[in-house]
Amino acid sequence: MASEKPLVAVTCTAPVNIAVIKYWGKRDEDLILPINSSLSVTLHQDQLKTTTTAAISKDFTEDRIWLNGREEDVGQPRLQACLREIRRLARKRRSAGDEDPLPLSLSYKVHIASVNNFPTAAGLASSAAGYACLAYALARLYGVESDLSEVARRGSGSACRSLYGGFVEWQMGERADGKDSIARQVAPESHWPELRVLILVVSAEKKLMGSTAGMQTSVETSSLLRFRAESVVPARMAEMTRCVQERDFQGFGQLTMKDSNQFHATCLDTFPPISYLSDTSRRIVQLVHCFNAHHGQTKVAYTFDAGPNAVVFALDDTVPEFVAAVRQCFPPESNGDKFLKGLPVRPVPLSDELKAALDVDPTPGGVKYIIATQVGPGPQILDDRQAHLLGPDGLPKPAA
Amino acid sequence: MASEKPLVAVTCTAPVNIAVIKYWGKRDEDLILPINSSLSVTLHQDQLKTTTTAAISKDFTEDRIWLNGREEDVGQPRLQACLREIRRLARKRRSAGDEDPLPLSLSYKVHIASVNNFPTAAGLASSAAGYACLAYALARLYGVESDLSEVARRGSGSACRSLYGGFVEWQMGERADGKDSIARQVAPESHWPELRVLILVVSAEKKLMGSTAGMQTSVETSSLLRFRAESVVPARMAEMTRCVQERDFQGFGQLTMKDSNQFHATCLDTFPPISYLSDTSRRIVQLVHCFNAHHGQTKVAYTFDAGPNAVVFALDDTVPEFVAAVRQCFPPESNGDKFLKGLPVRPVPLSDELKAALDVDPTPGGVKYIIATQVGPGPQILDDRQAHLLGPDGLPKPAA
Repeated sequence: MASEKPLVAVTCTAPVNIAVIKYWGKRDEDLILPINSSLSVTLHQDQLKTTTTAAISKDFTEDRIWLNGREEDVGQPRLQACLREIRRLARKRRSAGDEDPLPLSLSYKVHIASVNNFPTAAGLASSAAGYACLAYALARLYGVESDLSEVARRGSGSACRSLYGGFVEWQMGERADGKDSIARQVAPESHWPELRVLILVVSAEKKLMGSTAGMQTSVETSSLLRFRAESVVPARMAEMTRCVQERDFQGFGQLTMKDSNQFHATCLDTFPPISYLSDTSRRIVQLVHCFNAHHGQTKVAYTFDAGPNAVVFALDDTVPEFVAAVRQCFPPESNGDKFLKGLPVRPVPLSDELKAALDVDPTPGGVKYIIATQVGPGPQILDDRQAHLLGPDGLPKPAA
Repeated sequence: MASEKPLVAVTCTAPVNIAVIKYWGKRDEDLILPINSSLSVTLHQDQLKTTTTAAISKDFTEDRIWLNGREEDVGQPRLQACLREIRRLARKRRSAGDEDPLPLSLSYKVHIASVNNFPTAAGLASSAAGYACLAYALARLYGVESDLSEVARRGSGSACRSLYGGFVEWQMGERADGKDSIARQVAPESHWPELRVLILVVSAEKKLMGSTAGMQTSVETSSLLRFRAESVVPARMAEMTRCVQERDFQGFGQLTMKDSNQFHATCLDTFPPISYLSDTSRRIVQLVHCFNAHHGQTKVAYTFDAGPNAVVFALDDTVPEFVAAVRQCFPPESNGDKFLKGLPVRPVPLSDELKAALDVDPTPGGVKYIIATQVGPGPQILDDRQAHLLGPDGLPKPAA
């Protein structure tokens, strides 16, 4: 009994990433090929991560998936595309004559369980971490060692960027089959240890247009988006790569803000227009520009994805004062002690000069809380069997 | 005494205009030459107008100006540019040997008084009506009959479009001296009698960046603006002209909305970004798209200038239902009887189907009031001496 292995399971974690040169628009909806390259920062998994267990067993009768404890439809096309792609890579590896640790495993059904350690309400792109984690877990399960960009990308475009830590570019590629549309690490997480990331979670006021539908409409209707993709982004990719390599925060911050603004500009140029920024988002933008103007240099930089939450970059020595400025402009409505999550931030008083310079209408409760984090590594294997989300029966363990 | 004419005065009125292909960005800051052509609708003066009296007298010792009863600095550069330009045209006319009804008048000082019949708080571009009115009054005073585009334009770019009624284009021109940057009527006010205009006045929450400073920053920093001016607007001017000529409301409305959105997109692409739209503006956008989707066609169309107020176009038979929809989404906070100003609008009930289709969070007081108006004529001379804003002493009459 002890020697029997009715079930083989692998558990991994994967990070969230935040694009500083934005991906918006596909040139191939099916293969998920983008109209421009993008560049992102991988966030640390101590604060934000997805954990996924993938298991195979000859006893399983069908593929099944559970997200945050709830079973979901395994037949959804993107999930199927990932499973198909990883099995194709596994077959390819086997036919190449590599040793196969798992005989017959390719015909076995798979069970997948995945959980996020951050609330969906935070509006963070959980699909990127989720599909990166799935791709990584399945690759380990099937012994696939080749590039996983395509597996992750078929689930969610930006997921391929969560396959690496540090600073990651997703090269758009040129081939029609997408084989050259891959993620690549620009610099490892150790490269810029002073860089900090603050996620300002804004009260989500209403349902937003999903990014898949949104970017499709943008590609169809926005002439500014086409121009951006063809004529603006290539130079910005080169410039952002330089800023990262040289740890040039001024350049990094300014270009990050400009690219976020331009992405949202193309959303507004979409017809009907798409607005992801709320009045609170705009107040954060104003706060950042006031803060920088006061200091006479770019000390903090915002970026916004397809939602109203701000992600703010700063160097570690700027964080305490900026957090104090956020508290000043967005006084916590309640539980002020839970306003700041993640990395500890030393409380500091705000100078009268800076207070006066913050020309922002105070909006109590506008920012619900802040998650302080930093640049982090790529997906990780959890060797501890206790970490598995699936029990020996192949079903999700009861939540601890 | 009765035969003496110590003071010669002319009083005119001029209209507000609303651009449907937007002007944003100058290629010459001094001459006020735009980076693209624009096209506007002249609004009726029954609802919105500027009245200006210009007077000359040998007894005046200096040029003076009063706006809405308050004396202002006559030395401001744009006002001086207008005065210089009209006097240049007057001299040119005289040297051409035309009869001069006002000997020596060119050496006389001028007094100017100007009032708007609409509140500044309405956020409407009063400078366009104001400078058009000034140019028109001065031209009559000096007997100038040539094109007044340059006189008005030197005061405020879009003012040249308020020199004509109906539908007006401002051709950007190509010459460095701006002589071919002129306004021209595309169609008279009688051309499309069913067209109605609703101004949705939104509570102004904060000070906004002025359009002069805003467009300058946009020209300097937005690559999308440059692309728009060079590669998008020319085709849109031709298409908008066709829509007006053929009274094609579907085409007119869609292009009006797209061009407004693209203008605001270029503001967002400016660095630091400029946001003129508020959450209420965005709710109006959503309301219009819901309303049109419900009807399966473009029945109403919004446009926004450098502020949060919406200007909505519709044909007359759509107005009652749309006003009812606005009341539904933005319940008047108080004085519901003063919610609608201008042209009368028949109250109609909202169908349950439309009510259900309006997927907009109700925002009480979000729209302060509506001004209902229509397309109107260009500047008018008021022959009635009682209309003069300046008394026989050359000073503003006490407000009636």
